[in-house]
Amino acid sequence: MVFYGFEDKGSVSIAIFASGLNLLLIRMKVEIINIGDELLIGQVVNTNAAWMAEQLNLSGFAVHQFTVISDTREHILKALREAENNAEIILISGGIGPTRDDVTKTTLCEFFNTRLTFNNEAYQDIKTLFARRGFPVTELNRQQAELPEGCLTLPNKLGTARGMWFEKKRPGEGKTIFISMPGVPFEMKEMMTNEIIPRLLMCFSAPFIYHKTILTQGIGESFLAKKIEFWENNLPEDIKLAYLPQPGMVRLRLSGTGKEERLVRNRVSSAIGELEKIIPEYIFGYDEETLEEIIGKLLLEKGNSMATAESCTGGYIAHLITSIPGSSGYFKGAIVAYSNEVKENLLGVPSGTLQKFGAVSEETVLEMAISAQTQFNADYVIATSGIAGPDGGSIDKPVGTAWIAIATPNEVFAKKYSFGDNRSRNIRKTALQAMALLRKKLIGQ
Amino acid sequence: MVFYGFEDKGSVSIAIFASGLNLLLIRMKVEIINIGDELLIGQVVNTNAAWMAEQLNLSGFAVHQFTVISDTREHILKALREAENNAEIILISGGIGPTRDDVTKTTLCEFFNTRLTFNNEAYQDIKTLFARRGFPVTELNRQQAELPEGCLTLPNKLGTARGMWFEKKRPGEGKTIFISMPGVPFEMKEMMTNEIIPRLLMCFSAPFIYHKTILTQGIGESFLAKKIEFWENNLPEDIKLAYLPQPGMVRLRLSGTGKEERLVRNRVSSAIGELEKIIPEYIFGYDEETLEEIIGKLLLEKGNSMATAESCTGGYIAHLITSIPGSSGYFKGAIVAYSNEVKENLLGVPSGTLQKFGAVSEETVLEMAISAQTQFNADYVIATSGIAGPDGGSIDKPVGTAWIAIATPNEVFAKKYSFGDNRSRNIRKTALQAMALLRKKLIGQ
Repeated sequence: MVFYGFEDKGSVSIAIFASGLNLLLIRMKVEIINIGDELLIGQVVNTNAAWMAEQLNLSGFAVHQFTVISDTREHILKALREAENNAEIILISGGIGPTRDDVTKTTLCEFFNTRLTFNNEAYQDIKTLFARRGFPVTELNRQQAELPEGCLTLPNKLGTARGMWFEKKRPGEGKTIFISMPGVPFEMKEMMTNEIIPRLLMCFSAPFIYHKTILTQGIGESFLAKKIEFWENNLPEDIKLAYLPQPGMVRLRLSGTGKEERLVRNRVSSAIGELEKIIPEYIFGYDEETLEEIIGKLLLEKGNSMATAESCTGGYIAHLITSIPGSSGYFKGAIVAYSNEVKENLLGVPSGTLQKFGAVSEETVLEMAISAQTQFNADYVIATSGIAGPDGGSIDKPVGTAWIAIATPNEVFAKKYSFGDNRSRNIRKTALQAMALLRKKLIGQ
Repeated sequence: MVFYGFEDKGSVSIAIFASGLNLLLIRMKVEIINIGDELLIGQVVNTNAAWMAEQLNLSGFAVHQFTVISDTREHILKALREAENNAEIILISGGIGPTRDDVTKTTLCEFFNTRLTFNNEAYQDIKTLFARRGFPVTELNRQQAELPEGCLTLPNKLGTARGMWFEKKRPGEGKTIFISMPGVPFEMKEMMTNEIIPRLLMCFSAPFIYHKTILTQGIGESFLAKKIEFWENNLPEDIKLAYLPQPGMVRLRLSGTGKEERLVRNRVSSAIGELEKIIPEYIFGYDEETLEEIIGKLLLEKGNSMATAESCTGGYIAHLITSIPGSSGYFKGAIVAYSNEVKENLLGVPSGTLQKFGAVSEETVLEMAISAQTQFNADYVIATSGIAGPDGGSIDKPVGTAWIAIATPNEVFAKKYSFGDNRSRNIRKTALQAMALLRKKLIGQ
């Protein structure tokens, strides 16, 4: 019993919206099916499912099952049949690449009793994508424009495999929605964000949920929990708190639920206002902001520039700062000095300082910052020197020791930190701590 | 129809081994069920399933499905019923903690038509664990010693929740094995490694499976597929190929299966040998290797050093190189020159070159490489200059244009590339391409 809901894009939103009215304020059950042998042999961790589930939850949908299956006709059919008994929305990612081992598209045709047909709009998109890259369109890519008849196809801005949206009437009333999308994470994310979630929200009007994440840095999860215990215990019942720790930071997510958007937003904002009074020194931003972004904005506002002089962070701070579009407007550059020789020759750290105090010392890191400020003609400088590990530690300076210096137009200072024994996390923590120090100076704290 | 296979540990291995002989060399199908709401809201990524699948595959078991479900009686029963129709071995992780919201144990009793009974051996283990930590045993933990009658319980060296091994006769012949284990990753891993996999291997003598992944760079998935089409079509039936694309590289995984380890390895190796003749210029490594690791090893072997002079990659290459432990043994440092001023002052690129050819040009990137080689006293240098985007492109030099130069002790050369329009992927692709060029020079290609 296949219901072909759409003939063209224009009619979609209306059709969906009308049927969605009945379902107002019911949390729809979602099942996520990830197709891919690379998942089943454990070569790739299923980060797609976690990301999809998080986004769906934030939009008010309840994900009740993930199913990871192999890329075979039989298994896909079995999973679709089981899922349609248990969920109203079935999201399928993976298995629609250009290579012959991907059978999802033909299996979907079988399941929905339809056939592939050449989709000119899809073909034009593929041609445009290839033209921009300067490649000819291969036969395998041309075949990606063959899509199941009767489904709504969803554009893929970042790849050649379009999404496919099917609807099927349920035996009683209502319908089940099946959406197939690429498994490549950035293509999947773009399609989920810009096509799938907005369309699902039009179909099923969920209660209003408002999330706001407070980003903290410089305090561990358990210490933070203790500091905000009283505030947490006195949160209103319709506001939930989640701790989301990451290396070098803890994110606090508040989720408010209710019927009226304005009221929900106000209640969450006032809870955040209270929190800001309790831990102002640890909060550096909100939601998806990053320290590198915040620093960029502050520098642009002030018309100032920056540079880095990095030892233990090995260019990671420069990488983070330059990951932001437009960073060439304030970032002058970096010197990564991974040996004493380079610290002397390129950063002018006197050999006496290096010999007397060592490379990982207040004296060295201050010299690095001052020298970079002059050489790059930069207003602000971050300098780092530490022992990332696993080797190079001593009793005086164990692995995880890091000195960070900040030079501003008015002063230069250095602070010492003790992180852990994991190399990549030490690099990350040093970088975040250094950027947090710079941010405080930029806002005059 | 519950079959209580074991009365005590002593008899287990013999009973299992005898029944296992019939199943010799059949690849047993495994389903992994992970129980946990934290997975379904996307707060935790399901790394357990990937780890379990990898270990099982390495031991010759075929994992055909992961199912992630909520910690409710109904959902657990549904998942167990579906799984027993499709798999001979069902591994269940999670849902057996000490808190009252964990219903797995009682639901397993219901499914197997049995009841909880106090297990003194389990209780002694819990008491020992708590004594070692200096804590008293709580009532909740004492309840963890109540375990289903008739199952084999598996010791947990690192926690209080024992594993549970059930067998159930199948309607025809044979049996299905259900194993419940903790969801805490280190407890699960310990139990899988020391109890579950050895016991499964005794039950089912699985065929030998050998995986080898070939890492390619510098060619897109569809072009690669075309180049190796003939080879792919002529692979022996017992060798499977999978394409695993990532930004800037495509991994090709060959999986061979058979009775004899030596034969399987030989067949896979000879298929790889053929492939190496077809696309030698695109293969840079195997399995879990990374370019930064390979470069590090080559430099250490040769006793040579390197440095980078980065514009568009903004320190990312330096970051990758220094992410490898021991990189201070060959990496001198980097100059990130994010403005023309810095390219002139710190890298000595003549202002005439910058004015005449622009920062993104063969001339500039060659000067950057040569200058860094002198300044860092380095044997090898990577230099990059490009337009990462989203701004800064022109008709002559659109976003995605990148020049890469490599300086070696004998020569210096530059190449031009056109990547896409995504900033972070352009940075990543430029870095991978640059490291691939350096690797070729290091191995004398």
